[in-house]
Amino acid sequence: MRVSSNLGIPSRADNFSEWYNELVQKADLADYSAVRGCMVIKPHGYALWENMQRALDDMFKATGHQNAYFPLFIPKSFFEKEAEHVDGFAKECAVVTHHRLKANPNGPGLIPDPDAVLEEPLIVRPTSETIIWNSYSKWIQSYRDLPILINQWANVVRWEMRTRMFLRTTEFLWQEGHTAHATYDEAEEETKTILECYRSFAEDWMAVPVLVGLKSEGEKFKGADHTYCIEALTQDGKAIQAGTSHHLGQNFAKAFDCKFQSAEGKLEYVYATSWGVSTRLIGTLIMAHSDDKGFVCPPRIAPIQVVIVPMGKDAETRERTIGVSRSIAESLRAKGLRVKIDERDKESPGAKYNHWELRGVPVRIEVGPRDLDAGSVVLARRDTGEKATVLLDDVLASVEASLQAAQKDIYQKALAFREANTRRVDTWAEFQEIFSGEGGAGFVVAHWDGTQETEDAISDATKATIRCIPLVPLHPSDEEPGVCVFSGKPSARRVVFARAY
Amino acid sequence: MRVSSNLGIPSRADNFSEWYNELVQKADLADYSAVRGCMVIKPHGYALWENMQRALDDMFKATGHQNAYFPLFIPKSFFEKEAEHVDGFAKECAVVTHHRLKANPNGPGLIPDPDAVLEEPLIVRPTSETIIWNSYSKWIQSYRDLPILINQWANVVRWEMRTRMFLRTTEFLWQEGHTAHATYDEAEEETKTILECYRSFAEDWMAVPVLVGLKSEGEKFKGADHTYCIEALTQDGKAIQAGTSHHLGQNFAKAFDCKFQSAEGKLEYVYATSWGVSTRLIGTLIMAHSDDKGFVCPPRIAPIQVVIVPMGKDAETRERTIGVSRSIAESLRAKGLRVKIDERDKESPGAKYNHWELRGVPVRIEVGPRDLDAGSVVLARRDTGEKATVLLDDVLASVEASLQAAQKDIYQKALAFREANTRRVDTWAEFQEIFSGEGGAGFVVAHWDGTQETEDAISDATKATIRCIPLVPLHPSDEEPGVCVFSGKPSARRVVFARAY
Repeated sequence: MRVSSNLGIPSRADNFSEWYNELVQKADLADYSAVRGCMVIKPHGYALWENMQRALDDMFKATGHQNAYFPLFIPKSFFEKEAEHVDGFAKECAVVTHHRLKANPNGPGLIPDPDAVLEEPLIVRPTSETIIWNSYSKWIQSYRDLPILINQWANVVRWEMRTRMFLRTTEFLWQEGHTAHATYDEAEEETKTILECYRSFAEDWMAVPVLVGLKSEGEKFKGADHTYCIEALTQDGKAIQAGTSHHLGQNFAKAFDCKFQSAEGKLEYVYATSWGVSTRLIGTLIMAHSDDKGFVCPPRIAPIQVVIVPMGKDAETRERTIGVSRSIAESLRAKGLRVKIDERDKESPGAKYNHWELRGVPVRIEVGPRDLDAGSVVLARRDTGEKATVLLDDVLASVEASLQAAQKDIYQKALAFREANTRRVDTWAEFQEIFSGEGGAGFVVAHWDGTQETEDAISDATKATIRCIPLVPLHPSDEEPGVCVFSGKPSARRVVFARAY
Repeated sequence: MRVSSNLGIPSRADNFSEWYNELVQKADLADYSAVRGCMVIKPHGYALWENMQRALDDMFKATGHQNAYFPLFIPKSFFEKEAEHVDGFAKECAVVTHHRLKANPNGPGLIPDPDAVLEEPLIVRPTSETIIWNSYSKWIQSYRDLPILINQWANVVRWEMRTRMFLRTTEFLWQEGHTAHATYDEAEEETKTILECYRSFAEDWMAVPVLVGLKSEGEKFKGADHTYCIEALTQDGKAIQAGTSHHLGQNFAKAFDCKFQSAEGKLEYVYATSWGVSTRLIGTLIMAHSDDKGFVCPPRIAPIQVVIVPMGKDAETRERTIGVSRSIAESLRAKGLRVKIDERDKESPGAKYNHWELRGVPVRIEVGPRDLDAGSVVLARRDTGEKATVLLDDVLASVEASLQAAQKDIYQKALAFREANTRRVDTWAEFQEIFSGEGGAGFVVAHWDGTQETEDAISDATKATIRCIPLVPLHPSDEEPGVCVFSGKPSARRVVFARAY
């Protein structure tokens, strides 16, 4: 396999999948673990996740939500209560059957103790609706107990057959919001509020443009009345579902017999929502922006926003450039910026540049003796590669301007890519042609007759699925009626198809 | 059972254990769940945990640590690698044996799919040394890869027979630090650095005085070279181990074959530490400070620091008191304080006072029409019950002073209690007499001959264990030699005994 010069990762054009896998590891974001399908999130990757968490958590709290924590384990019988949910979730999961190990009487090592079989197996939560609604049914008696607006940051486990770091792992980290409301309309408003948080986070923080829409019946969350989502596009033309917000109707309230006395004294079932984003966002981020040099990270969520590289071969020069570097770092940190000085003395400047480019630091400051003689340093942007010589007095302002520009430009570049890879298609021949290759083919905006049969037939033929029915049309004409690209039957409006991760 | 007037919880004197269990639930800190031994941490309790996490995380980062995340599951074989660790940890745990449920062919519901048995059972982590050292052994080749200073915020599971909310639950939340070092001395320094973080957090944030010491061989972490700890005292005279910092020597490095090339080119095993505190801190906090009115929380970590209660029976008066309340809240929040206004219109002021006293809000501001006529409001402190009338212009300063005083006074009260309940004992008769009752009996500082046999015999006779060998003696004479209180054999110094949670 060809690899990009001295970075140790393949190019995107060569092998997008390998490029991604190598980048994740070489950029110190994550590593494989000894447990099938589970990853280790390394400090650099976890710092990114912490920045994401902080931004999202602030949004949730600003919209009235509180955090709480519910058990990791769910009694098997709870999954049997909501019929649709069983089919969707309770199959591929980790099942705890014993509560003790004992020395193997017939050989070395340990075995699950046959005398410690659980009366009822426990499931490691794949999602927490059931265990949470078991509590809510105890907590809610009256309309005065509503709404409940709770979020949980947690790990969940789904026994996936094919895993890929960040995008689809057996265990992953996420947040799951679970709210309870007196009315359908209030629950609907909640799902939309959160959907807007997700859109804003994806676009304003991650610099990833997303489609905001409704899932088809076939793609909705099992157990939901309906599901909203944000959908991003990767550089290899595939869709990624980056976040979902579900209106659960009264399904879980009925399954867990959760009624409240209304202000008028009537007993009614509670309305519910749930919503989540996960460490999959990190995979989305990488696939949206990164390049053959490694990770490209928007400044607002970058673990390190600025790296300073002091140069000089002799001790005296190094002392000088390090002194200036520390003073620059101090002034940047005073503005709240996340700054790293790379003072390693056995690495060349070029090796350091590669090192931090690979890890996605948005702005680099090169502090060299010749520039210092002229009272200046060099600023380099990770996303564009642009370099500029700036006076020491202007460093702070230039860095802030560069970070702002990078945040904006990374978004604009991804938006332009999405626009260039979104096609309106009106014939089945053209639809098939677009999806004739193996990989992604961007978004296809086409008419659909609204039936599950057609959705399945299109998916079978092309592996493209309906990603969403946009809430805000990409083009006004998308909401005009037409004929289904597959069946020729009447269609109310266009929907968005793509192959998806 | 007798309960305190209108609070619905028993008194401490009546039944400390029931007082605790009821307080945890009535103060909205936690609730029982449907899963044996697992609790639900409610928003008020979780907000407290978030404040604790933030303070600790800042300390860890200030001392050079980074966060990361390792898998929830540990292959069974990993536990078999470190012999002592197996005995200590790999027994009472949750064992995952299947990765799928299927419809029961012989009846209703779901069963673990017999075709989906895992080749090797997975253990839900009771602690993560083994899975983490499996990664470290891949990451560490050279002294240049050291030290590794990583912390993880995670859930862990230990299948406890007797559980109690926060103090001992099957699943609990904690942080676990795992560091790797080139030398024994550097690892030793790390364990001490963290021990000081824990002491400072307990005393300066939680206002809980702690003994800082070394565990005896019998009480140390299984797999450690030695263990340091902080030990708190509850109001019923029992010790609580509130945090531990372990020097693991080269035990885990040897188990996972983790060697590094030193600067001199020699291959050596890596030295390790691990350290943790958990949601048990919340139990410690409650048992140390709370009273018959409910939760008493030191201001620095209180979820809500100030509650404002506007009064008035008619709409016009309420509008006036609510207006003033909001303006006070705004000025307090501008100073970074966490403030709640209780604007509920169907509750009496007295009911609101009880409500927030039960939930441990350190300072209450009563905004009543008569006081307002005089340009004043009433401030009440939760910990002492003191009330004072203060001018509106002085509210901010008075609140800040009250919060500072409460933080200090709560600590001093707990310290005085500990001093009053710490006894130096020189005869076995007196030792037995002190522990003749069923409950806690404070700390007993006594001579011990240093043997496991004596430690076991004392524990068998009195249920008191060695809590620690203090690093800083409670009294200088504690470090003078003497004779063992049990065996009469020579003793190098006094150690601290207590019954423990």
